[in-house]
Amino acid sequence: MNMLMYDLDSKNKVPLHKQLYVFIKNDIQFGSLVPNQKLPSKRKFSEFLKISQNTIQAAYNQLIDEGYIVSVEKKGYYVSKIENIIKLDNNEIFRNKEEKSELSILFDFSINGVDRYSFPYSTWRKLYKEIINENDKTLLTLSGFQGDELLRESIAHYLHQSRGVNCSANQIIISSGTEFLVQLIIQLFDRKTVYGLENPGYEKPRLVFKANDCNIIPIEVDLEGMSSSDKRINEADVLCITPSHQFPTGTIMPINRRGQLINWANKSQERYIIEDDYDSEFKYSGKPIPALQGLDSNGKVIYLGSFSKSLSPTIRISYMVLPPKLMQKYLQNLSFMLCSVPLIEQKVLYRFINDGFFERHLNKMRTLYRKKYDVLVQSVTEMNSNIEILGADAGLHILIKITNGMTERELVQKAFDRGIEVHGISRYFFESVPRSEYPIILLGYASMNEFEIKKAVSMLREAWLMDDDF
Amino acid sequence: MNMLMYDLDSKNKVPLHKQLYVFIKNDIQFGSLVPNQKLPSKRKFSEFLKISQNTIQAAYNQLIDEGYIVSVEKKGYYVSKIENIIKLDNNEIFRNKEEKSELSILFDFSINGVDRYSFPYSTWRKLYKEIINENDKTLLTLSGFQGDELLRESIAHYLHQSRGVNCSANQIIISSGTEFLVQLIIQLFDRKTVYGLENPGYEKPRLVFKANDCNIIPIEVDLEGMSSSDKRINEADVLCITPSHQFPTGTIMPINRRGQLINWANKSQERYIIEDDYDSEFKYSGKPIPALQGLDSNGKVIYLGSFSKSLSPTIRISYMVLPPKLMQKYLQNLSFMLCSVPLIEQKVLYRFINDGFFERHLNKMRTLYRKKYDVLVQSVTEMNSNIEILGADAGLHILIKITNGMTERELVQKAFDRGIEVHGISRYFFESVPRSEYPIILLGYASMNEFEIKKAVSMLREAWLMDDDF
Repeated sequence: MNMLMYDLDSKNKVPLHKQLYVFIKNDIQFGSLVPNQKLPSKRKFSEFLKISQNTIQAAYNQLIDEGYIVSVEKKGYYVSKIENIIKLDNNEIFRNKEEKSELSILFDFSINGVDRYSFPYSTWRKLYKEIINENDKTLLTLSGFQGDELLRESIAHYLHQSRGVNCSANQIIISSGTEFLVQLIIQLFDRKTVYGLENPGYEKPRLVFKANDCNIIPIEVDLEGMSSSDKRINEADVLCITPSHQFPTGTIMPINRRGQLINWANKSQERYIIEDDYDSEFKYSGKPIPALQGLDSNGKVIYLGSFSKSLSPTIRISYMVLPPKLMQKYLQNLSFMLCSVPLIEQKVLYRFINDGFFERHLNKMRTLYRKKYDVLVQSVTEMNSNIEILGADAGLHILIKITNGMTERELVQKAFDRGIEVHGISRYFFESVPRSEYPIILLGYASMNEFEIKKAVSMLREAWLMDDDF
Repeated sequence: MNMLMYDLDSKNKVPLHKQLYVFIKNDIQFGSLVPNQKLPSKRKFSEFLKISQNTIQAAYNQLIDEGYIVSVEKKGYYVSKIENIIKLDNNEIFRNKEEKSELSILFDFSINGVDRYSFPYSTWRKLYKEIINENDKTLLTLSGFQGDELLRESIAHYLHQSRGVNCSANQIIISSGTEFLVQLIIQLFDRKTVYGLENPGYEKPRLVFKANDCNIIPIEVDLEGMSSSDKRINEADVLCITPSHQFPTGTIMPINRRGQLINWANKSQERYIIEDDYDSEFKYSGKPIPALQGLDSNGKVIYLGSFSKSLSPTIRISYMVLPPKLMQKYLQNLSFMLCSVPLIEQKVLYRFINDGFFERHLNKMRTLYRKKYDVLVQSVTEMNSNIEILGADAGLHILIKITNGMTERELVQKAFDRGIEVHGISRYFFESVPRSEYPIILLGYASMNEFEIKKAVSMLREAWLMDDDF
């Protein structure tokens, strides 16, 4: 077995396991590594390249999946026979660059998770059984572009009661997620429209705007959310904000700032505010703060909501509330776009809400997530004095600022080496360049139970060399 | 009760019931009609304005829905009290302009319907019950941008077997309908891309392209489908075609023409063909013709498929197969766009296909739809000699050319007056101007049973004054 020398760059944006995978794949494709050649063992490779065995494993796994190498039990890793490789070149299997080897990740602080055990499986099953009904003539009939009317009515009712949103069912459009709502909005406005996005902010809308070559500008986020005094705000026509729980910083926008942004919108007919109320169901202290939409009496606010956090991201149901004038425009120009959500799903969700299950579920989840929040905060606080928790006690993620001298990249990599997935805040900035002096890490906790949270945090402490105060 | 005089224009694009609705609504809003005022009875109004009672009914229904008038049993129709109207002005209820009063339509020859009785309700129920399973850890975890892997594998397998499409599961992206696949394609290509669309052609893609300000040009459709000799074809970068069963003309593209279009695509690196195989499952005579994608060895064809016809349009599952190079581009640029289809639905569909139910269902539907096709064709043939049936015996709609001197508008209106909904072919042309001398009407027959088909056709005969040869 020959050792392989590769020049891995730990400062590069591309993760180490990816760099290694590419190097080995290239060598195989170009013949520097020949069929049946034995590759270095994980342990020796790890010592030689001075990277973790986890990183080697991840690279090897991807090469196995794609057929470049094989794993022979008790023997090791070998380059595949050559015919397999030629076939694959003609019919290459592509991997989502976001996919990491399942073996590598023990605890995932993803911000997209929900609690797996609390999903109302039996109620959901029961409702599907009732809904898929031969006698329902409407089950196979397209329900128009807005989505199921009863579901919209129940959403309108829920929004009024719990978020102070004023609307009728006919102002609601049901869709499949933020990406899709944003695409609808893009088609509703004209191409000259300038969108002002929170910086830092949720990256999905920004990516959709960019994929559609829209005009976007970054607007600063300060301790109160999107800054009304950022000079660039007057270049924008439409602002996209998360006032209930700024993503990612976790700030709740106070009433004054809300008023300032509504004033901004009222200054011109072309101005609108898109309010993304993505996790407003979860606020762990203080009074609930109503949606910004409720303060708007001039039809300036487009309200976005979703069931991704309150139920599950795999349900893929979200919605927007358009002010009457925009709804009229939508009717004229975009009503050919059929609702993307399967009708059965919509009817099940309607029953879930209407029969009172949703309210019960939300109450249960609030209690549960609040407990997890407390456990996480306590564990992190006990972790080290170089960690500061940022953001309000709301939503399904916290931020931690780490002042032990490590960079964001180092923190993420070291966590990954131990099988913990975390994300830094830098990806949420326009230029991926954060402003704060110290790195900030996001920890989503919804999908882990209390034991896992404690375990994961203690492993982070090891990974980040925080056993003693630094 | 006063009679009301309105100047209705039967040559106007706007349907008569809509014109009437607007006239009455305006009078109410401006006070020419006062609260509690009695409106003309349907019968007298119909006699006075010389339009059908159905038209009056449709207008009255819309006014009732929007709260402008009320229906008092055994008495008639009255203008609503004024407070209701003011409220509505501030919070107007919008109606989908496509919605017609349910009471007006007895038989709908819509091209979007499927047979209501044959949907596999009990299998579908059973599969949902099995899939919504507490033990399935992946049920609440986002499955990435392409959609569920097992479903994609089963689709790839099905496509290979039944359509001769060559692809791996990893070339497939699952989405929620044509509108959404087209939006993904728009974001995949750059904004300068020129799309050549069939003229006449399915209007949905055209509307999506227009809503996104894309460059589109019409390419003639002749008796073999999209014309390879239309001069404009060389202005296009991407052609969108329906070779298995041209929509709407029903032509099946012969092998020579397919070859010509593939040659066209091969002449430049930037050229692609989008093949929309929307109802290829249903062909009633002759050998099945494989997809165009199977003839392509240079990665030039993007293949679109859907379960809207084979299962139900309300399932909202469709997919595209990208050639490897485009899949790579998609991976790099658009993998942030999560799959829009709920995971439960995807898993149920996977089981439905994998357990053999889909194949059984298709066989059943082919037999059933073929019978309906035969009944429709026979009824129409017996109808009158001024009717010519166009297009191949495939798919779920036929076209009829009517040569009795009536215009398309007259044919559609007269049918509507009797409660039959049909569409003319003009809406599928770029400028809504058809080229043929005689009007052509589309008749979708999937949602009606044989009895309804015969009844509907005989009512069309009455409506179109075809009792004797014209």
